[in-house]
Amino acid sequence: MKLKTVGIKNIRYPVQVREKSGGLQATVASINVQVNLPRKYRETCVNTFLTVLNRYQDDMSAEIFSELLKEVKERMQAHSALLEMTFPYFIEKKAPVTGTAGLMEYTCRFTGEIGEGGSFILSVWVPGTTLCPCSREISDFGAHNQRAEINLNVKFNGFIWAEDVINLVETGASCEVYSLLKRPDEKYVTEKAYENPMFVEDVVRKVAELAQQHPDITWFSVGAESFESIHKHSAYALVDSDDM
Amino acid sequence: MKLKTVGIKNIRYPVQVREKSGGLQATVASINVQVNLPRKYRETCVNTFLTVLNRYQDDMSAEIFSELLKEVKERMQAHSALLEMTFPYFIEKKAPVTGTAGLMEYTCRFTGEIGEGGSFILSVWVPGTTLCPCSREISDFGAHNQRAEINLNVKFNGFIWAEDVINLVETGASCEVYSLLKRPDEKYVTEKAYENPMFVEDVVRKVAELAQQHPDITWFSVGAESFESIHKHSAYALVDSDDM
Amino acid sequence: MKLKTVGIKNIRYPVQVREKSGGLQATVASINVQVNLPRKYRETCVNTFLTVLNRYQDDMSAEIFSELLKEVKERMQAHSALLEMTFPYFIEKKAPVTGTAGLMEYTCRFTGEIGEGGSFILSVWVPGTTLCPCSREISDFGAHNQRAEINLNVKFNGFIWAEDVINLVETGASCEVYSLLKRPDEKYVTEKAYENPMFVEDVVRKVAELAQQHPDITWFSVGAESFESIHKHSAYALVDSDDM
Amino acid sequence: MKLKTVGIKNIRYPVQVREKSGGLQATVASINVQVNLPRKYRETCVNTFLTVLNRYQDDMSAEIFSELLKEVKERMQAHSALLEMTFPYFIEKKAPVTGTAGLMEYTCRFTGEIGEGGSFILSVWVPGTTLCPCSREISDFGAHNQRAEINLNVKFNGFIWAEDVINLVETGASCEVYSLLKRPDEKYVTEKAYENPMFVEDVVRKVAELAQQHPDITWFSVGAESFESIHKHSAYALVDSDDM
Repeated sequence: MKLKTVGIKNIRYPVQVREKSGGLQATVASINVQVNLPRKYRETCVNTFLTVLNRYQDDMSAEIFSELLKEVKERMQAHSALLEMTFPYFIEKKAPVTGTAGLMEYTCRFTGEIGEGGSFILSVWVPGTTLCPCSREISDFGAHNQRAEINLNVKFNGFIWAEDVINLVETGASCEVYSLLKRPDEKYVTEKAYENPMFVEDVVRKVAELAQQHPDITWFSVGAESFESIHKHSAYALVDSDDM
Repeated sequence: MKLKTVGIKNIRYPVQVREKSGGLQATVASINVQVNLPRKYRETCVNTFLTVLNRYQDDMSAEIFSELLKEVKERMQAHSALLEMTFPYFIEKKAPVTGTAGLMEYTCRFTGEIGEGGSFILSVWVPGTTLCPCSREISDFGAHNQRAEINLNVKFNGFIWAEDVINLVETGASCEVYSLLKRPDEKYVTEKAYENPMFVEDVVRKVAELAQQHPDITWFSVGAESFESIHKHSAYALVDSDDM
Repeated sequence: MKLKTVGIKNIRYPVQVREKSGGLQATVASINVQVNLPRKYRETCVNTFLTVLNRYQDDMSAEIFSELLKEVKERMQAHSALLEMTFPYFIEKKAPVTGTAGLMEYTCRFTGEIGEGGSFILSVWVPGTTLCPCSREISDFGAHNQRAEINLNVKFNGFIWAEDVINLVETGASCEVYSLLKRPDEKYVTEKAYENPMFVEDVVRKVAELAQQHPDITWFSVGAESFESIHKHSAYALVDSDDM
Repeated sequence: MKLKTVGIKNIRYPVQVREKSGGLQATVASINVQVNLPRKYRETCVNTFLTVLNRYQDDMSAEIFSELLKEVKERMQAHSALLEMTFPYFIEKKAPVTGTAGLMEYTCRFTGEIGEGGSFILSVWVPGTTLCPCSREISDFGAHNQRAEINLNVKFNGFIWAEDVINLVETGASCEVYSLLKRPDEKYVTEKAYENPMFVEDVVRKVAELAQQHPDITWFSVGAESFESIHKHSAYALVDSDDM
């Protein structure tokens, strides 16, 4: 056995992430790190990692995360390293009619790998509403609908903001989800979902098409899970750019 | 400090539970036990409990569970004892139009306490659909709906089957949830939910009224959580028989 | 049914919490709110709550949280209100020998109730090491030990910092837990745990005694769960100030 | 987009699994299924799957699971299908000195894929104790130890019982974990762990060597996570047969 992958799981750490709007957003990340390294450096592994992380925590972005990963690999004298940082990310979102502002929570993940080469994946989990086309078609009134969770993972050239990837995903469901809705907004989202019936596989296809059209996205995978309102199980669909 | 409550958490154990239909249902329970006992008996606590449990696991019911608890208390020479057993419970349920049979999963819990006196609580968690009255009223078509989870806890005289408590809860939402639905069934549940719009507090009130009318139920509490399809948070309502 | 308790569950929101050291700590809270209110005010409930929360999020403390709760009750014209805010809280902690600084994560919760009267509970969850007295006594060398989680909930007069409650709990186990340990520190914590063997009920009693001696704490409950290294289940103990 | 992967997540179902000892063990499985299929067959997907599952639930094994998967693919006219079934599995285990019998819970998973070709993976999650070599070496007495969870995934020729894979994993840690231990047993496991200090990467290497020596195992991956008693995070190690 030549390679020894060791790591730390479930480190929780406060970090500040750069926002598209120019600010820094304070959040709490869950971090996993794995490294392939000679046994003699093993004992100082946690200390080295946390020391490096500590210098980066106050100003994080997809680009800076890749520098952090590079420094982790070098300081640990590792052959390769894998770093995963998952965090809640809040974006102010305006209700569709009244414009009432509310904070929406999304989940983001940065995943970096570095060895001979290297790769970076930006992942987002975004809630949306799905309204069942079959239920609408066969019923005299109404249609079952429910919250769904859509996950998009992308590799890209240059730089992409999490805000833009989230925005791309949000347009993919029967209707977007909001934190604050007044009556005219609730009327709007109810009717919009009814006018845009989609199975989870329709959501996945639409998000995939949008990702494919994005000039900087070089690879992606997209999944959607719909917490069916008429069943206890979830409906699920999945596609990646290699399938297309 | 006169009393010392010690216990074991998260014991997983296969048990067989008596069904209303006359059979025995094999399931896997998560068990917590707490006892107040003199320190000298402390060390043998786990062994004693598992030895007693082992003799009861093959034939469990609300009544037999109370005997198990009594024996646990006596064998441990405890002043008092608390036992909680939570398990998935499956009931065959027929689709509303075609009668297609499918297995529905519910969560049940037996909670027993014994000291000077004693008490027993039967808890069930049942999925249901809620359809928003406000959304229906203000929209030209459609209405947002979603899966909800309804929890009913009851104390009672005599004996009550979990099947009957689950059945009572299922009639409380905008529509019941099924595991298998063909097209005529899906039309039925879609339209039924649309014709029975309910906020979570309406569900809670209806289940509470049914529990109040039950001749054997002497105390209850009921909660409902609705996984809103247009938001990321849940709506929630709660009432117990002392409030009524 | 006179009272109708309705609420929202699982609202996630960024908040800033006052630190004992004088700063503000940015974290992400999970919030539940329940109110008893006339049906006519029900629909605006989420909007009102989030609007009020929004004005308080940037500067939170146990005292300010109680003002927030009071304003929520008044603005909603509720008979009573219950508010729960749970959040990860980070404190810099120095390793016991080398003094190496690292960030420790604790979980804190503020729970406030307001009706005729009112109450406030501060809860903390703190990791610690337990080393089994029985295992040490009967073995020629070594003793099984493991991570435990200790939960202390307190009511108090005046004001208490979460930092001080966490500190009180940390002295209650066989040894404290740290995020960063160098070799002399690891020797220290290993030997300290071995010299302080404790069952979970010993931990609970020690923390209870410290809470009882605290001049401002008027009520408390303490629980400890030990993730046994030689079993798959947890050992558990529990006491509250009414038992003492 | 040629392929459309759709599926169902989180179906819970009672199943009976063949035991090495000749009996059938009743347990409750969590099932995910994904299929690539033409859109026209999509609507009947859940019904078809549950109908097929229903005929297999009473007598399941690794071999029968592969037949189930084949029938699912054919009945759905799918190009390919993926089926995952995770379940708690109980094995009676005797304490090492007194021979006291107790039930241990393990987690097992069957994962099958079928398309042009096909594959089957048997996964087990097994608890064990790890005792830190560094802590033991530098301390005058004691050594920190903790529960770890070891995951082994295997592909194989012919047939392998889950019992045998679990047994292989259990010999890989500093000491095995038991559900029932009397005093002589507790002395034994305490001393055995102290005499077999292992980092998670040592556990992973030992399990990997045992898997490599097994005549029927053709591929494997093994991971171990140690819930460090002196930290709040986990130590982690990972290897697969392609690395060796």
